[in-house]
Amino acid sequence: MLTPISKHVKMHNFSAGPGILPEEVLEEAAKACINFDHLNLSLLEISHRSKNYEKVMEEARQLVLELFQVSNDEYEVIYLGGGASLQFAMIPYNFLKTKAGYINTGVWASKAIKEAKLLGNVQIIASSEDKKFGYIPKNYIVPDDLDYLHITSNNTIYGTQYKAFPDVNVPLICDMSSDIFSREIDARNFSLIYAGAQKNIGPAGATMVIIRKDLLEKSKSNLLTMLDYKTHVKAGSMFNTPPVFPVYVIMLTLRWIKKIGGVSAIEKRNEEKARLLYEEIDRNCMFEGTVISKEDRSNMNVCFRLKNKLLESEFDNMWKDANISGIRGHRDVGGYRASLYNALPVESVKVLINVMQEFEKKNA
Amino acid sequence: MLTPISKHVKMHNFSAGPGILPEEVLEEAAKACINFDHLNLSLLEISHRSKNYEKVMEEARQLVLELFQVSNDEYEVIYLGGGASLQFAMIPYNFLKTKAGYINTGVWASKAIKEAKLLGNVQIIASSEDKKFGYIPKNYIVPDDLDYLHITSNNTIYGTQYKAFPDVNVPLICDMSSDIFSREIDARNFSLIYAGAQKNIGPAGATMVIIRKDLLEKSKSNLLTMLDYKTHVKAGSMFNTPPVFPVYVIMLTLRWIKKIGGVSAIEKRNEEKARLLYEEIDRNCMFEGTVISKEDRSNMNVCFRLKNKLLESEFDNMWKDANISGIRGHRDVGGYRASLYNALPVESVKVLINVMQEFEKKNA
Repeated sequence: MLTPISKHVKMHNFSAGPGILPEEVLEEAAKACINFDHLNLSLLEISHRSKNYEKVMEEARQLVLELFQVSNDEYEVIYLGGGASLQFAMIPYNFLKTKAGYINTGVWASKAIKEAKLLGNVQIIASSEDKKFGYIPKNYIVPDDLDYLHITSNNTIYGTQYKAFPDVNVPLICDMSSDIFSREIDARNFSLIYAGAQKNIGPAGATMVIIRKDLLEKSKSNLLTMLDYKTHVKAGSMFNTPPVFPVYVIMLTLRWIKKIGGVSAIEKRNEEKARLLYEEIDRNCMFEGTVISKEDRSNMNVCFRLKNKLLESEFDNMWKDANISGIRGHRDVGGYRASLYNALPVESVKVLINVMQEFEKKNA
Repeated sequence: MLTPISKHVKMHNFSAGPGILPEEVLEEAAKACINFDHLNLSLLEISHRSKNYEKVMEEARQLVLELFQVSNDEYEVIYLGGGASLQFAMIPYNFLKTKAGYINTGVWASKAIKEAKLLGNVQIIASSEDKKFGYIPKNYIVPDDLDYLHITSNNTIYGTQYKAFPDVNVPLICDMSSDIFSREIDARNFSLIYAGAQKNIGPAGATMVIIRKDLLEKSKSNLLTMLDYKTHVKAGSMFNTPPVFPVYVIMLTLRWIKKIGGVSAIEKRNEEKARLLYEEIDRNCMFEGTVISKEDRSNMNVCFRLKNKLLESEFDNMWKDANISGIRGHRDVGGYRASLYNALPVESVKVLINVMQEFEKKNA
């Protein structure tokens, strides 16, 4: 018999990633570490080829199709290790034949571009680098002869997010790591979507990839086995031992999304959280948002700063006293960043807003 | 407050991998899923760049150096996602310039050879394929002009294991996934050792790599970032989000090895377990070992079969009734395979031997 495990204090976790997960998911995950599926064995010490685990992998794949409202006739879902950063290389390694297009909206897009350039001809279709990635480019032309166009749907570091996706005649590939299943999208417009799990759908250590079969058929031949999407599709993500526990926690998190009403319900919650916080930033005389064009503000990562930087340590003490965690800005940017991922309750946003208002009263 | 979690029945877990982990490690892992390091946050939802997690990564790296008795002046330790299978590709991608040597002792060695052949010139120095990998090759000559020689220290599927390693004048690279830290070795004879964690040192989802600095300096240039060992060494395994939870459980498991007396103590336990079981297989008139040359029998994966295959279902019922789990042979080989990884107590081996003796009494 184990000692009961508990959190003693309710924390408000605004971490940019790995980010907050639902309480009930964490509790199930803890249980599985001791006794999984009534086997009297831990999930950490059973074969990934056991029936009990095969069911987990299958459900984790099916839930992605279901939440994206697409069919297995058209799309394949796989789970891989290595993070989204490995996808930056795998995508051009599999699909860049003549020329690939990239839109540069920040650090992650730039990293994806760097890998593609090592493998072939890359055209930068648009970039917001001129204004420190403070907006999402619009009104660009996408040539019809690209092998694919790669975009990054949400920028965790600078706090921008595509509100509409480019309408293109080439395969559209999207890094959706930081806003997957946070809002309804038409997945049928995409040929490949990938997401490191550790922001909206699980813990670090696994990456979800959904690929349209017609793109998969175009992939190159004689690739290194582990870097070939076809390997993992054929083997149902079980070519080698998958990241067993991370995929299990993803499955639990996707189940939770479905249970609370699916992506449309999540989207409403996320919109309310973002609206409340941006309204406060714009209203409160002590703060300012950092994204140049308000229409491109991310609903996931809300970036702001104090107008008077000298008051930072006072503000820091106040939010720490309120059991708020993880709102410091990225080390390249500074200021503050409140990440409002799916599992963050609106209550936590209200606590932060309250601290901001108290801070204004004291200092305005 | 959570309901206490417990196993109700003590299982004897002989799984070939993911394999058994120490009870106390599983309990700590479960606690960290709820409340890590008294942060009132789960390990699954905090930044990998938090001080609390940086300490975990650092300790996980230091423990490898300590258990191998080598210094950070000479060796670097990193943790990667993607499994040992990704290392099959990364090794030649980083180090195969002119010609690499491989010794083929089974399925995993063959897979490593396949990847190297996609990238360059490969010489098979020795192979036991002629006798279904039932022995470890000896008395071969290793040319001095190889970029490296690659070996697989233990064969999980066929149950063979190197008892002495080749003495070579080229960098020696070893896949030690299934017997790492199960016995004392002289790590200084190796330029690179890698191990998927899920057999002897942790759960699935992370791979440990230890590299001698003089080999690292010889690695190729302009490599894809995530496939370049230098990337991960420079960033202390934090170039991108690492497999946070798997690395934590590895750290706990390495701590446990150290606590119970280090690798020399583990080796004594493992030798006793293997001796007891092989003695029974050789003595018991119902069973036979499957490895041709007894001196190459693995202390980790004990492969055996019934002389009369028709009695399999009766034997299966008996070991299942004794709460034994995971002793079916690999699907390519059949028969039985009892994996005696570090965390398996000698008590479990005695339970299996008892079942074998009961079975003999009934059927002999």
